[in-house]
Amino acid sequence: EQAQITLGNGSNDVLELLARAFVDNGEEVLFSEHAFAVYGLATQAVGGRSVITPAKEYGHDLDAMAKALTPNTKLVFIANPNNPTGTWLGRHELHHFLTQVPKEVVVVLDEAYFEFASDPDMGAPDYPDTTAWLGEFANLVVARTFSKAYGLAGLRVGYAVSSPEVADLLNRVRQPFNVSIPALYGAAAALDDQAHLDATLRLNRDGLEQYYQGFVALGVAPIYSLGNFVCVHVGRNGGELYEALLREGVIVRPVGNYGLPNHLRISVGSERENARCLDALGRLLGA
Amino acid sequence: EQAQITLGNGSNDVLELLARAFVDNGEEVLFSEHAFAVYGLATQAVGGRSVITPAKEYGHDLDAMAKALTPNTKLVFIANPNNPTGTWLGRHELHHFLTQVPKEVVVVLDEAYFEFASDPDMGAPDYPDTTAWLGEFANLVVARTFSKAYGLAGLRVGYAVSSPEVADLLNRVRQPFNVSIPALYGAAAALDDQAHLDATLRLNRDGLEQYYQGFVALGVAPIYSLGNFVCVHVGRNGGELYEALLREGVIVRPVGNYGLPNHLRISVGSERENARCLDALGRLLGA
Repeated sequence: EQAQITLGNGSNDVLELLARAFVDNGEEVLFSEHAFAVYGLATQAVGGRSVITPAKEYGHDLDAMAKALTPNTKLVFIANPNNPTGTWLGRHELHHFLTQVPKEVVVVLDEAYFEFASDPDMGAPDYPDTTAWLGEFANLVVARTFSKAYGLAGLRVGYAVSSPEVADLLNRVRQPFNVSIPALYGAAAALDDQAHLDATLRLNRDGLEQYYQGFVALGVAPIYSLGNFVCVHVGRNGGELYEALLREGVIVRPVGNYGLPNHLRISVGSERENARCLDALGRLLGA
Repeated sequence: EQAQITLGNGSNDVLELLARAFVDNGEEVLFSEHAFAVYGLATQAVGGRSVITPAKEYGHDLDAMAKALTPNTKLVFIANPNNPTGTWLGRHELHHFLTQVPKEVVVVLDEAYFEFASDPDMGAPDYPDTTAWLGEFANLVVARTFSKAYGLAGLRVGYAVSSPEVADLLNRVRQPFNVSIPALYGAAAALDDQAHLDATLRLNRDGLEQYYQGFVALGVAPIYSLGNFVCVHVGRNGGELYEALLREGVIVRPVGNYGLPNHLRISVGSERENARCLDALGRLLGA
């Protein structure tokens, strides 16, 4: 219902609002190695202390995260699926983690890629719809966005779903007019356009499959992804390969700043764009 | 030049960025009684302490503000013209104030209504173009917006002009995608549409004149305004009169929360809208 929603100028805004509402100087924010860069930046901006647990197979180690909770922990960020690795957490492990978190600690499930991950044809039936758990966990916040599957990144609109109490706090720190009128109309129209979403999900599934097959041919190892991107181990410095790909007119993302110096994060595009990227990669890797 | 610009999701965003970049827990932010409400909110959001000097004839008392500076003052907000009173500060008094402020204290001139105030036909030739002073005062920040004279409030785009050093700090705390693509295109187009701006300024001058004449007939006293609104002393509780006007289908702004319980702030509309507002006011005031 409406009292559970907080609108943001993109979900980036929602993540910053959460840090501002719940974290003071010196208080701890918990997240995982390789997780989305904004968690650390939002923590730093409010003077909080980032507590970062080591990754497990490129994803979140929820046991380690549960052990890293302290009386000073105010906020936990979990990206599901994670950006930039594409890894995800299943229903049972995530629910079990939530039962271990004290009620005073706010847990943010950052589901920017929710629509891709919950696509039944993506092959991850254990990927949960966590909004169903909001009644059970008053400290749970689910953050989603129109910037990914809905393609409205340029309009800037995301949202949090939470208890009305948490939403009330977030709406107090929110700027009064943080979302523009075109963004509000665009988001409403996007929710009604199932055909466009279906086409986007199909393009993404096909594109990921194209990349996986291409990577086999190139002898490089991808991390299996539930997002609209794939992180691949390229067996050499990703930053240099990124620069070389740029010169070929192909833009990918080096992820050395995420602790993944030998990986590249590649967004799924059209079949032709994916083929061009794989072709350039093949030439540069000498495959 | 470009390195001096910080874009905001409306100038509200710019004001919040300034507080976040320059004010820590317990540090002081100086502004005037009757000044724009966001200064106090932005200060509170970062744990700062609001120091508020009494108004002089509804406007800023710059001598009092200069005296209220302390070693703990980090930021000064000055609205010129002021919202909601429409009062303004002239070139000489404002420049003199800036010479009195220590270099470490950032002074923000909030010029949301700049285009109206600097309209040569508004009759305030002493209203300054303060961007000309940026070379002289490295601690000066001029905030402007596309939400008022350019009519793009729904798109959310404002900006600060400052030294490159201040802009660099603001751009570090700014969200990476804080302004939407439609807003960027809209702002660029607005800057090229002088005819629309001229028509807006003419409508505003004519509307203010219409209100001043109407107020004389009603026997109520306006505060002379350089904005696109006028604040008028209605000789009774403004909140109640606001409610009564609402029931007549006329929306104005009560300003009791600005320390002006017996005033109303009225936005200039079309000639017909202004006439309807004056007519309803006349009936309710029994004039």
